[in-house]
Amino acid sequence: MNSETVPQQAIILISCPDQQGIISSVTNFISSNGGNIIDLDEHVDHTDHVFFMRVAWELSEFTIRDIQIADEFQSQIADQYSMEWSLNFSSHTPKMAIFVSNLSHCLYDILGRYQAGEWAVKVPVIISNHQKLRAVADRFDIPFRFFSINPENKSEQESRQLEVLKELEVDFLVLARYMQILTPKLINAYTNRIINIHHSFLPAFPGSRPYHSAHARGVKVIGASSHYVTEELDAGPIIDQDVVHISHKDDISQLIRKGKDLEKIVLSRAIYSHLERKVLVYRNRTIIFD
Amino acid sequence: MNSETVPQQAIILISCPDQQGIISSVTNFISSNGGNIIDLDEHVDHTDHVFFMRVAWELSEFTIRDIQIADEFQSQIADQYSMEWSLNFSSHTPKMAIFVSNLSHCLYDILGRYQAGEWAVKVPVIISNHQKLRAVADRFDIPFRFFSINPENKSEQESRQLEVLKELEVDFLVLARYMQILTPKLINAYTNRIINIHHSFLPAFPGSRPYHSAHARGVKVIGASSHYVTEELDAGPIIDQDVVHISHKDDISQLIRKGKDLEKIVLSRAIYSHLERKVLVYRNRTIIFD
Amino acid sequence: MNSETVPQQAIILISCPDQQGIISSVTNFISSNGGNIIDLDEHVDHTDHVFFMRVAWELSEFTIRDIQIADEFQSQIADQYSMEWSLNFSSHTPKMAIFVSNLSHCLYDILGRYQAGEWAVKVPVIISNHQKLRAVADRFDIPFRFFSINPENKSEQESRQLEVLKELEVDFLVLARYMQILTPKLINAYTNRIINIHHSFLPAFPGSRPYHSAHARGVKVIGASSHYVTEELDAGPIIDQDVVHISHKDDISQLIRKGKDLEKIVLSRAIYSHLERKVLVYRNRTIIFD
Amino acid sequence: MNSETVPQQAIILISCPDQQGIISSVTNFISSNGGNIIDLDEHVDHTDHVFFMRVAWELSEFTIRDIQIADEFQSQIADQYSMEWSLNFSSHTPKMAIFVSNLSHCLYDILGRYQAGEWAVKVPVIISNHQKLRAVADRFDIPFRFFSINPENKSEQESRQLEVLKELEVDFLVLARYMQILTPKLINAYTNRIINIHHSFLPAFPGSRPYHSAHARGVKVIGASSHYVTEELDAGPIIDQDVVHISHKDDISQLIRKGKDLEKIVLSRAIYSHLERKVLVYRNRTIIFD
Repeated sequence: MNSETVPQQAIILISCPDQQGIISSVTNFISSNGGNIIDLDEHVDHTDHVFFMRVAWELSEFTIRDIQIADEFQSQIADQYSMEWSLNFSSHTPKMAIFVSNLSHCLYDILGRYQAGEWAVKVPVIISNHQKLRAVADRFDIPFRFFSINPENKSEQESRQLEVLKELEVDFLVLARYMQILTPKLINAYTNRIINIHHSFLPAFPGSRPYHSAHARGVKVIGASSHYVTEELDAGPIIDQDVVHISHKDDISQLIRKGKDLEKIVLSRAIYSHLERKVLVYRNRTIIFD
Repeated sequence: MNSETVPQQAIILISCPDQQGIISSVTNFISSNGGNIIDLDEHVDHTDHVFFMRVAWELSEFTIRDIQIADEFQSQIADQYSMEWSLNFSSHTPKMAIFVSNLSHCLYDILGRYQAGEWAVKVPVIISNHQKLRAVADRFDIPFRFFSINPENKSEQESRQLEVLKELEVDFLVLARYMQILTPKLINAYTNRIINIHHSFLPAFPGSRPYHSAHARGVKVIGASSHYVTEELDAGPIIDQDVVHISHKDDISQLIRKGKDLEKIVLSRAIYSHLERKVLVYRNRTIIFD
Repeated sequence: MNSETVPQQAIILISCPDQQGIISSVTNFISSNGGNIIDLDEHVDHTDHVFFMRVAWELSEFTIRDIQIADEFQSQIADQYSMEWSLNFSSHTPKMAIFVSNLSHCLYDILGRYQAGEWAVKVPVIISNHQKLRAVADRFDIPFRFFSINPENKSEQESRQLEVLKELEVDFLVLARYMQILTPKLINAYTNRIINIHHSFLPAFPGSRPYHSAHARGVKVIGASSHYVTEELDAGPIIDQDVVHISHKDDISQLIRKGKDLEKIVLSRAIYSHLERKVLVYRNRTIIFD
Repeated sequence: MNSETVPQQAIILISCPDQQGIISSVTNFISSNGGNIIDLDEHVDHTDHVFFMRVAWELSEFTIRDIQIADEFQSQIADQYSMEWSLNFSSHTPKMAIFVSNLSHCLYDILGRYQAGEWAVKVPVIISNHQKLRAVADRFDIPFRFFSINPENKSEQESRQLEVLKELEVDFLVLARYMQILTPKLINAYTNRIINIHHSFLPAFPGSRPYHSAHARGVKVIGASSHYVTEELDAGPIIDQDVVHISHKDDISQLIRKGKDLEKIVLSRAIYSHLERKVLVYRNRTIIFD
């Protein structure tokens, strides 16, 4: 967990048309240059014939300099396999902006982990369309930025949010029960880098008031789903989901109470997977290397 | 489990507008007539102000004769509270008809329990629109009735099925992956007495090929739902639901494989609840007394 | 959740030898005195022939004054059935002391709920044998009391803790990963009022380092168990348990990480049940009315 | 599922001291000889520095003949890395012997899957120390062999069982609630090839009557564990485990009822993993490639 005591690693996420020899080529590239593979996971979609891979290796004796790895990998490996890929270094600690409205349970869960040093992440700002949770941000000494949002000013306010995010060099966004639908402008600025938590097991009960809908339908399980935000509401690639059993004894207030525990855990698990660079998106689905 | 060694019980299921004194009135009726209450469970829907109750009591020293209980309960108790209620005796073993098509996993699960004496039920007939599972029925020495069904003859064939069911005095139907949509005629002949298993966590993925839809959507859990059949497809009162976690590694064939285990267990749990007279339907939802 | 907007309730928990007529007597007592029963749940242990009951009723039109209810219930009902019982009023907000050592995840979870007003509880003090979490207490403006503990001073320090608890009129204790074994003196002062969280599915892996033991044994699920503290270590009545699936990929650090999420949720669920007066202890087991 | 329509595969399971270049060497061996890798999964135990791997590849264009693969792999790859390894071909359908006593639920679950063609397995014999389930074997047309066992004849009868197993060329054994403790002679003849189902979440409640113990302890979850049999009772490598939530309402008969559903599913999942050659045993733990 502590980036200072662990040897620096490079992590590469790859997708490409499936063919023979990919694993062998990639592992040769790493091994022959002195890299020690720490973790390798691959997946083949046999329906679409697509190959996915995550490899992490130690850099301490790797003979290619960090700044050169991308170029070398592109020319030696990626070109011949038509790979899409991304390279990350464990030495870079990502910056996460948290968006909230009035509900605090996800925010507390995130900030408790953050303060405890559970995640390798920085939180430079909490953004809200309400003032209510400013006190929580203050407790944790995190800058809180309030943006009043109504249908008229929404686009303008989002542009200002975007400026803040860029100025702070934010890497990804977490919508911790943020009760606003983002515009395409913001969504497309952070493709597959905005994590939302929706309080139902999607695709059931998208949109507003899912616990009310779940109660009306008489379901025996309720769920929560974390997903990357896309332009279609609650329809982005799902990162994590979980459910809890309920009964006829649970009225809507009990569904909300039990659901909150799900929401915060499922959201935090998704953030963890994202931080660990274990998520690959393909055709609106995710590969989650574990 | 063995009805001969257990004292005979009466079981009453009640629903009525909520008001004070109902529990006390019902338990007085039983206790003052020498009945020993074995199990009592009640539920109040505080939103709709409706009261639900299940009471089971031993009949060995009950001073009202079995045949008189219904009348006495109606006049002494039910009238004043505007109750809807049903009375069952543990001495009556219900008759269950099983409808199947080509998939055997639910059928095997049901018949294994039946043969092992796990349930107090009789299975006078297995009905199918295919010949494939006749061999399974034969293995378990259960009459198998084949009804070829196509769009033209569907109504006619269902009438014949209905005749068989009535002749055999069938109490309720189980659709064990029966791949036909019932017509209202059959549905309304067995209101809240036709148990279906649908291979998704409803209301997500109703209709056909839910595992294909689940895979396309990239969900991280799949589920199964047992429900009473109503005229709207896969929209009846849910009796039981369960889910299993999946990952990107699971292609559609793996979803089908893992889902089968869910389907058979969820269906059998619903049958058990129904057999134990633990299910009350109210406004398309179920109260499941446990 | 807000005690001011909800009508005051009385809640009674009862256990006694099973016999006919108990439910009817109790509900008559409430109904005939103008009480409106909000919730009633009962359970009969048919092996030990013991009857358990929880009843909650609205006091707004109850004709017996709060201060008289206990006496009236004792003489009119409890005596004839040899009941053990306890009476609580929703108007009383319990005081909970939190004991911690160095791990913050359960503490954050509890304090987040506390601050959000999720529970009807007061937290007058956090007690620790380490200084590390003082900063967390400070963030939430809760008095923090440090008691350095070693084998020599343990009994003396516990006596001082006990003084603090009595002075603050603490109703119950929560050991939120408190890494000290309590002495009988403290345990017996708060019988069935000290809630501990143990990081395994008891009775497997009691005592220290259960995740290490779980890893060595190669289990495929890990769990967490909340229980009331008794003199025998990790052997008290279990209030709540839950598990999560793991795999060979999870080393001990991953078990600890995944386990933390379980621990905090299971502990908070147990606190909720306790606060709602839904827990009855009988022969080292719990009845949890839901 | 159908071995005739799927291209033949070779599957190799490997464990060896961890070092650089293993993956690359193995995948090179396969790719350079014309093998198309279908599935590759690896795991490194960073505590013990051990490397584990499962690779499956298509044989249709593989240039090494089946009968030569083992020798070539040993000399070209395994020797230099001090590998322990096993090679299987999807063309070989394993033979499974089922041992039972009086409970039929696991047996029905296995035979239902077997008949439905869910597994690539043959069942040449069911062995029992009771006559009760002969009728089930007969229903499914599987030879049933009865061996009366008592303390005096146990060793002798096991020798006879062993003869039967060898004569039938049985590959592995499934103890489907077989209520006899095997002697080391039988255990050691089928090391890591005898799958047992134990009706608790091990290591809690080993030995007899775990549901009674679970009820006495007042646990809130019960479980089932499938494991390879070793000489120490219920202490072998765990293949699969699962749990179900219970409550105070569940008496021992309900625990047994709910537990049966767990047992059969967990056992069948373990058999599936074994059949798919996805299980590697290391130091009394399992790696389950998924």
